[in-house]
Amino acid sequence: MIKVGIAGASGYTGVELVKLISNHPQARLEAVTSSSYKGKPLTDIFPSMRGFESLICEELDAKALSTRVDLMFLALPHKVSMAYAAPLIKEGIKVIDLSADFRFSNPNAYEKSYQKHTDKDLLAESVYGLSEIYRDQIKTARIIGNPGCYPTTILLALLPLIKEKIIHSKGIISDSKSGVSGAGRSLSLTAHYCEANESFTPYKIGNHRHSPEIEEILSIHAEKKVNITFVPHLVPVTRGMVSTIYGQAAKSVHVTDIRKAYDRWYAEEPFVRLLPQGRFPAMSHVRGTNCCDIGCHFDEDTGRIILVSAIDNLLKGAAGQAVQNMNIMFGLADETGLDYVQSPL
Amino acid sequence: MIKVGIAGASGYTGVELVKLISNHPQARLEAVTSSSYKGKPLTDIFPSMRGFESLICEELDAKALSTRVDLMFLALPHKVSMAYAAPLIKEGIKVIDLSADFRFSNPNAYEKSYQKHTDKDLLAESVYGLSEIYRDQIKTARIIGNPGCYPTTILLALLPLIKEKIIHSKGIISDSKSGVSGAGRSLSLTAHYCEANESFTPYKIGNHRHSPEIEEILSIHAEKKVNITFVPHLVPVTRGMVSTIYGQAAKSVHVTDIRKAYDRWYAEEPFVRLLPQGRFPAMSHVRGTNCCDIGCHFDEDTGRIILVSAIDNLLKGAAGQAVQNMNIMFGLADETGLDYVQSPL
Amino acid sequence: MIKVGIAGASGYTGVELVKLISNHPQARLEAVTSSSYKGKPLTDIFPSMRGFESLICEELDAKALSTRVDLMFLALPHKVSMAYAAPLIKEGIKVIDLSADFRFSNPNAYEKSYQKHTDKDLLAESVYGLSEIYRDQIKTARIIGNPGCYPTTILLALLPLIKEKIIHSKGIISDSKSGVSGAGRSLSLTAHYCEANESFTPYKIGNHRHSPEIEEILSIHAEKKVNITFVPHLVPVTRGMVSTIYGQAAKSVHVTDIRKAYDRWYAEEPFVRLLPQGRFPAMSHVRGTNCCDIGCHFDEDTGRIILVSAIDNLLKGAAGQAVQNMNIMFGLADETGLDYVQSPL
Amino acid sequence: MIKVGIAGASGYTGVELVKLISNHPQARLEAVTSSSYKGKPLTDIFPSMRGFESLICEELDAKALSTRVDLMFLALPHKVSMAYAAPLIKEGIKVIDLSADFRFSNPNAYEKSYQKHTDKDLLAESVYGLSEIYRDQIKTARIIGNPGCYPTTILLALLPLIKEKIIHSKGIISDSKSGVSGAGRSLSLTAHYCEANESFTPYKIGNHRHSPEIEEILSIHAEKKVNITFVPHLVPVTRGMVSTIYGQAAKSVHVTDIRKAYDRWYAEEPFVRLLPQGRFPAMSHVRGTNCCDIGCHFDEDTGRIILVSAIDNLLKGAAGQAVQNMNIMFGLADETGLDYVQSPL
Repeated sequence: MIKVGIAGASGYTGVELVKLISNHPQARLEAVTSSSYKGKPLTDIFPSMRGFESLICEELDAKALSTRVDLMFLALPHKVSMAYAAPLIKEGIKVIDLSADFRFSNPNAYEKSYQKHTDKDLLAESVYGLSEIYRDQIKTARIIGNPGCYPTTILLALLPLIKEKIIHSKGIISDSKSGVSGAGRSLSLTAHYCEANESFTPYKIGNHRHSPEIEEILSIHAEKKVNITFVPHLVPVTRGMVSTIYGQAAKSVHVTDIRKAYDRWYAEEPFVRLLPQGRFPAMSHVRGTNCCDIGCHFDEDTGRIILVSAIDNLLKGAAGQAVQNMNIMFGLADETGLDYVQSPL
Repeated sequence: MIKVGIAGASGYTGVELVKLISNHPQARLEAVTSSSYKGKPLTDIFPSMRGFESLICEELDAKALSTRVDLMFLALPHKVSMAYAAPLIKEGIKVIDLSADFRFSNPNAYEKSYQKHTDKDLLAESVYGLSEIYRDQIKTARIIGNPGCYPTTILLALLPLIKEKIIHSKGIISDSKSGVSGAGRSLSLTAHYCEANESFTPYKIGNHRHSPEIEEILSIHAEKKVNITFVPHLVPVTRGMVSTIYGQAAKSVHVTDIRKAYDRWYAEEPFVRLLPQGRFPAMSHVRGTNCCDIGCHFDEDTGRIILVSAIDNLLKGAAGQAVQNMNIMFGLADETGLDYVQSPL
Repeated sequence: MIKVGIAGASGYTGVELVKLISNHPQARLEAVTSSSYKGKPLTDIFPSMRGFESLICEELDAKALSTRVDLMFLALPHKVSMAYAAPLIKEGIKVIDLSADFRFSNPNAYEKSYQKHTDKDLLAESVYGLSEIYRDQIKTARIIGNPGCYPTTILLALLPLIKEKIIHSKGIISDSKSGVSGAGRSLSLTAHYCEANESFTPYKIGNHRHSPEIEEILSIHAEKKVNITFVPHLVPVTRGMVSTIYGQAAKSVHVTDIRKAYDRWYAEEPFVRLLPQGRFPAMSHVRGTNCCDIGCHFDEDTGRIILVSAIDNLLKGAAGQAVQNMNIMFGLADETGLDYVQSPL
Repeated sequence: MIKVGIAGASGYTGVELVKLISNHPQARLEAVTSSSYKGKPLTDIFPSMRGFESLICEELDAKALSTRVDLMFLALPHKVSMAYAAPLIKEGIKVIDLSADFRFSNPNAYEKSYQKHTDKDLLAESVYGLSEIYRDQIKTARIIGNPGCYPTTILLALLPLIKEKIIHSKGIISDSKSGVSGAGRSLSLTAHYCEANESFTPYKIGNHRHSPEIEEILSIHAEKKVNITFVPHLVPVTRGMVSTIYGQAAKSVHVTDIRKAYDRWYAEEPFVRLLPQGRFPAMSHVRGTNCCDIGCHFDEDTGRIILVSAIDNLLKGAAGQAVQNMNIMFGLADETGLDYVQSPL
């Protein structure tokens, strides 16, 4: 039984982790922390959480947690996690960080988008937690930088084609769409019901922080510098994410090459589902699951490749993938605690 | 041409007033005020407002407005309006206040639900702006306390039946439902998209501030103390309000008595629409209009009367009724500037 | 391991049952039927159902199912189920019917609202599947009439107070609100996105089929004829149901009497949660769970009792309660397969 | 006063036309037709339409309309309009057709996507009703093929840049998103509330009928064959459309060239609004208006141009542009009857 702690349990990702660990047959929730709700039961924050009346939010104190937890999920804001990881590691606690703080190999890339990184040693050690791609390193990692939701949709769709040189690494576009929970539970006009409802809008064109994360991983696998055009949009749904990705095929690629590449990479993967020819994913098809559904269209005349990938941004895009990584770290099957069947509604 | 100013233009009611006055054939928008956006163009707050780039938010200064406006709409928070009305009146500016501050005849009732009232003279003078019922007093008023949205739905449905003693004044229940814009544009978890979306919930059972406003008016017309049971609920829509009202018929009432009562009161009213027998209103039927739709059901066996009334909370429930009152004050037909035909979507 | 079949798997209730049985540790899904999709895999109907490619919809044939299933859920339209139950029972298959066809004790009540009942013997034998109230009879039943969603919210809230004579059986009102999935997956203008979205509306005032079902059960427990006023409304959410119930307390009732009554009835029940004083349920608090949350308010001055109960209409209001009943019939704990913890989003 | 008839008034585009003509100061609604609601008042179909009780749906009979209307809007399904236009024209009635039937110059392009065209003469005569681009031809036209909603967003954004050779005509991508009303009022699972709500999905990748319409117009203005990649998506909102368009700049293009091109084309246009640098449109910013908002981003390093254009699909994307075209045909200012100011909610 893995003893688990969750930092930042009052946020949407945090409470999703509480749900997943509570339903996990091989893990037990031992501690939750929240700076804003310290001393309060989790059910005060989320009245819908049944049976959690005894779960009291505490402060994040590595020493106090050292004997109680084997692994800590950090569901904290970007730039906050950085300081908490090392003390936990020092106490022998494994860390899965869901912020951007431990996702980058190159500290400069991080610092350009966020701020000065104060723990570059740990950053160098950390493993990028895209489960299907970095499974081997995740197995033995002490610290995981869990991927962003946008990067997860884009990288899972692109990496097999990039790696096998089926798609040109130049000129790739991802037109991505996220539900409102992606912006978290903190208050903002953007997340005000009356502003988000009955609307749809692009945002941060040209300067979204997820581009460097995507480009770093793509570049590693393409073995050359890759730049992509990435435009995120806000959709009036609570949870869900779709990326529609456009690229150009390398010469003499046939549609079956694309499907074969995905098969080679994902045939044994429980959470990546390649859809049949002519079918494309919808947010509702993956809601409540840890799946990434991928559909592809190839126009042989023009060489245009269109990929559509969909995830639940709070699961495969955050808490679900984090638990999948925990499973891998502790020698469990990926699906453990994540194979709850969902209905379409 | 009526010269109009709007205080609190950065809120949802304020900007709705901006819209109505801009479309009004006999009124001209001369000033908008906003304490939080002072010096900024209205289009910075609401990028969708075309052609308003030159409308700059100013401070609310009665002196500065005295030569520029004939009438001021105060779309300010409860407890804030109170201080601004008198200086405007003194400058000869008529005031329509959309907060609760000038709605009560009895200052004690106000003070019980809000706070100490600092301008009881003006409160005594102010006229309750339920247009259909207080038209005569509104004509000559210098200050109007524009009704709350919940009271508007409930009073328009009940008053004819109360006044004509068709319904018992005892035991009346209003189960009321409001869209999220009723809570305004300020940030709160309640109005967070992910909390309001895909939910529905009652709130403030037993202590909502609108009860005293409703009960005061009902009592006046019933000529005895009336208490009602009022339960508001939050619906995941941007705009709209429905009240389902339950009461008991007086002895020997027939269904035609009910319809006749409404006809006597509202046959000439452009904005109250009694639906045919067996038809009931929907929020979508009144969205974007100043109408109050009323449907009624009477069970002769049990004497149970069920009334359903629907409004757009930002129009007949706030800005629309305010403009209707302005029309009455300035001798215009009620419909002036409010008769825009809406489609159902 | 209980071998289960589901008839009508292509509807929303049917697919919810598929989900629940698939996640159930003591049940195995052996057959699904659908007249409209015969011969097609379930994933053709619901592309989001992963891993169900091999589940092929068949015709509902009692003989063919006799050796394969122990229990059949009938998620068929009202008036259709009636003919299918007896043949299944004859083959030794237990039946949980989710239509209205086996809910009534009195066939006249059924026939008044629906049509001639063609299997009055089985109707007489069938047990009303309100799990918390009829547990003992359910244990040994061969056929269950699973309650309607509206009746479930209303009966669970009212029965303890009716039974203990805390609330007057006269003059009770239920103002109820349902998400759109309550109307099923068949096409209608009412369920068209553009008609339901951004609206809210009452429907079938005075003639909804659920009233007789509610009144029959209330009357049995009150030991006298009970009539209620019941008004259903449509809310723009996919799943969820809230009933706000109004009644009058019997003499000298104290607020603690109400809470004690609920405690006596439900303290040991895993799926009925009485909320603390001053807290009321929201649809989002029970979404994805089999819970019925109940909040209550009592005004000692007026004797007015206000109850609010909320369920997920597809779970406690249909498929969830059906599985709870299956658990009871097969000697399992109620929670088996239904205790999946949900997050608030 | 222009005497107007509307064919297909029971659809969403039809009823939007009823709204616009009713609010139009220079037009009068003389007839509405509907095959499915013949003989019924419009208010039976749309209970929210106040004051239209006397408007009875009739059959579409050119002869019967000849003395009563000057102009007929055909809001009929694709492939149905074709047969009705000629008889109306023959009676001297001008026609604005909102289906695809009269949009193409090249009948082969039409026939490839739809069916055999049975009135090629009229097709040859018809003018493409993209108001800003074809104003001169519209002035004297007898028949207009009103543009599709997707083409309107894409063409208004691209044509100035194509015409002035600022953007490469090769490799253009439009990732487009539409509200559900774009699919009309007919029943389908796609438009079922529970299927569209809380989801987001691409559809008809590789074979949407709007591509040929877009490509034909782009090719004319580029003076060479233009192919685009067009992917439509469904957004859970009632009304609204956004296209995010990606292209490559011609050599030595500067960001100011792009803005200047738009200024040259649209500075005098009341309904095309170029947003300031760094601002992008949202569906909510154009809802209820006839505006097309355009935002652009240019990355000088990579030459990547990103355009975002937004319209209300029922207005500038259908009924609004149709009325704009009527205004042009009858010598009125474009804005007549279309300049109603909207608030953001």
